[in-house]
Amino acid sequence: MNIQNIIAKKRDKKELSKEEIEYFVTNYTNGTIPDYQASALAMAIYINGMSYEETTNLSMAMAHSGDILDLSSLGTVVDKHSTGGIGDKVTLILAPLISSLGIPVAKMSGRGLGYTGGTIDKLESISGYQTNISIEQFMKNVKEIGISVIGQTLNLAPADKKLYALRDSISATESIPLIASSIMSKKIAAGASKIVLDVTCGSGAFMKTLPQAVTLAETMKKIGELAGKETICIITNMEEPLGKAVGNSLEVIEAIKALKGEMQEDVKEVVFELGAYMLKLAGKGNNIEENKKQLLEQIQNGKAYEKCKQWIKQQGGDINYLEDLETWPKAKFIIPVLANEDGYITKLDAQKVGEISMRLGAGRIRKEDSIDKDVGIILEKKIGDKVNKGDVLAYIHSNKEEVAKIEEKNLQNTYIIGEKSDRKNNILKII
Amino acid sequence: MNIQNIIAKKRDKKELSKEEIEYFVTNYTNGTIPDYQASALAMAIYINGMSYEETTNLSMAMAHSGDILDLSSLGTVVDKHSTGGIGDKVTLILAPLISSLGIPVAKMSGRGLGYTGGTIDKLESISGYQTNISIEQFMKNVKEIGISVIGQTLNLAPADKKLYALRDSISATESIPLIASSIMSKKIAAGASKIVLDVTCGSGAFMKTLPQAVTLAETMKKIGELAGKETICIITNMEEPLGKAVGNSLEVIEAIKALKGEMQEDVKEVVFELGAYMLKLAGKGNNIEENKKQLLEQIQNGKAYEKCKQWIKQQGGDINYLEDLETWPKAKFIIPVLANEDGYITKLDAQKVGEISMRLGAGRIRKEDSIDKDVGIILEKKIGDKVNKGDVLAYIHSNKEEVAKIEEKNLQNTYIIGEKSDRKNNILKII
Repeated sequence: MNIQNIIAKKRDKKELSKEEIEYFVTNYTNGTIPDYQASALAMAIYINGMSYEETTNLSMAMAHSGDILDLSSLGTVVDKHSTGGIGDKVTLILAPLISSLGIPVAKMSGRGLGYTGGTIDKLESISGYQTNISIEQFMKNVKEIGISVIGQTLNLAPADKKLYALRDSISATESIPLIASSIMSKKIAAGASKIVLDVTCGSGAFMKTLPQAVTLAETMKKIGELAGKETICIITNMEEPLGKAVGNSLEVIEAIKALKGEMQEDVKEVVFELGAYMLKLAGKGNNIEENKKQLLEQIQNGKAYEKCKQWIKQQGGDINYLEDLETWPKAKFIIPVLANEDGYITKLDAQKVGEISMRLGAGRIRKEDSIDKDVGIILEKKIGDKVNKGDVLAYIHSNKEEVAKIEEKNLQNTYIIGEKSDRKNNILKII
Repeated sequence: MNIQNIIAKKRDKKELSKEEIEYFVTNYTNGTIPDYQASALAMAIYINGMSYEETTNLSMAMAHSGDILDLSSLGTVVDKHSTGGIGDKVTLILAPLISSLGIPVAKMSGRGLGYTGGTIDKLESISGYQTNISIEQFMKNVKEIGISVIGQTLNLAPADKKLYALRDSISATESIPLIASSIMSKKIAAGASKIVLDVTCGSGAFMKTLPQAVTLAETMKKIGELAGKETICIITNMEEPLGKAVGNSLEVIEAIKALKGEMQEDVKEVVFELGAYMLKLAGKGNNIEENKKQLLEQIQNGKAYEKCKQWIKQQGGDINYLEDLETWPKAKFIIPVLANEDGYITKLDAQKVGEISMRLGAGRIRKEDSIDKDVGIILEKKIGDKVNKGDVLAYIHSNKEEVAKIEEKNLQNTYIIGEKSDRKNNILKII
């Protein structure tokens, strides 16, 4: 076997065997195959595609290129993953909510990059919260209190890390088989036995259209199936940001409020849909509507919030931040963004809002950048809302006055006001 | 402008602008663009193709990445180039033949690689012949005696050199736009004002089928046209080797015999066709048949051979090798290959013969390998010839007895004997 022949096969639109894919992944990870050959193969895959079987083999090979987390001692662990969005605080709410029903939550999350945020950055805005505890402590926490969420302390899927960085430099990111295998390799390495995927769709997501999102979802479901991990994909709307808050501590505050019973309508739709399917996969009930009721009850009876406190405390976080939301530090400048005409909000481009939040300091352009956890945006109006001229559309939270002023204008321009139009349903399709 | 966007355009099958192609070539040559990005672009070009305009712009940009030989002081110089074959001694015959008619020959030739030979290696088998004289001496020779043939002493098209090596390592060699621009960039840099291309076709050539050869020829003709260099492509048959000899000194000997009047039929067809078009491009006559007669006369009256002696002598070669063919050193073992049945030769795969010659030591596997100039093959029988069992098909010339024995068997198996069948015409198409 040699890499030239493997490249030539894919170049000629032929299917690669399991052995060929493993040969590539192993030798690319250990440096025997140089970047320039991997790059030619990635481009050939981008243009000529891969079958479900090839994509599964690529996922499995990348998963096995590093550590595999063994969660078998915890019983059935259902992992949840989002393909990325703006204002996405779903994990922060779902993790304790699910755990409060006795389903173990043992989750490794990532940091944000570009205009999408990351759960680990958000959790670190809670004073004291440790994201890099040892795997032993992580497992112990899950066994003792049923929940732990940490950063990627293990060397999970290093082949994916290397290939992802390469793809980024050669314009080969937006390929369904490559995106699907990248996500699934990490999920497989992270050890869950069942997976619920939130496949976001719209301006703030990788997948801009429903057909694209459906293809990605079908591909990942198929990989899950072939890899022996039951997978359900829920395609959710990411045309506008999810919920009200965009920015690290602001999103955590929104999540805490949600666990206390004050949940935005769009967040509720997504959290309950994903949660209901997680219950189903965990064997806690086949009726989705009944499952949603179970989840609602855990919010109403305070058990989800109690589980959250237990979790944060166990991982070193200061629960005063949960008990008293006034504890949170605030950005120096909180500037309202006003409507400059009457009408209805017809568009609020999620990506643009994400970019504004990033420029305020909430996100990173490069991996090594630091972030400002207190800045961001509170969206008071969302698509479908009626507004009058002079109404507050949103608040900019910034630590730099000049930046705040520029972004206030940008955010005002991002709100498109027009004729009455209905909000889209947030759940677009279940696959 | 940035390389990611350029890659993305070609990935999406869009046409690259002149500026984008120049940006790529300049920055790849100077090392700003790394191999892994060039590799992704090369693969995208391989799969998605390039228009004539893009291919021309790539050729021009690569030509201008290094030195450009200025031949304008010599008048109209007609260059001749072959896309590679086995037993191809056409340049050795044509160069003095054309020069004897007053057309300046100022040619830079290459070395052989793999199973195809190179004119420079062949010329170096003449004792004393200098292939690396200075450009000043080269120009002086052409002005004084009308002919000089040297190796690539200038830094011609370094971008092509770099890209060619990369393509080889990523299975992106057999792409018509990339082959065409590679050849034409070197021809443009080599300074000729008009070009006759021998586009070989068949088992011993890059282009295995006539439609492929036609596409390559049309592409190169179009590049020539757009670059302001009149170009004629002659597609010639390379199913079996050309002429009798394969190997360095053996081919030179055949070429000297040809100049003295003893020319193989297939060699004659190719030499006269190419030569007649070179005369036409040089303004020495529009009637191809008349031009062929002029060429034949130069052989018959000895002027082509005289020009050859003058040329070789001027470049330091020992003309005793021309005057007395017995002067040539011979390989230690000259072994006949016999027919093992009666019939007609129906197939004599040129690539296989080339590989046998390479294994005998006449060719290089890697650039840095040395060659044995005295070894090779003399083909006594060619396609269409009648043979009886026991007839000599060919002679193996080897300096290693063991190798000779193995290759004798291989060459015998390469001769396919069957029913009567006609030889193909050697000139397949003029474009």
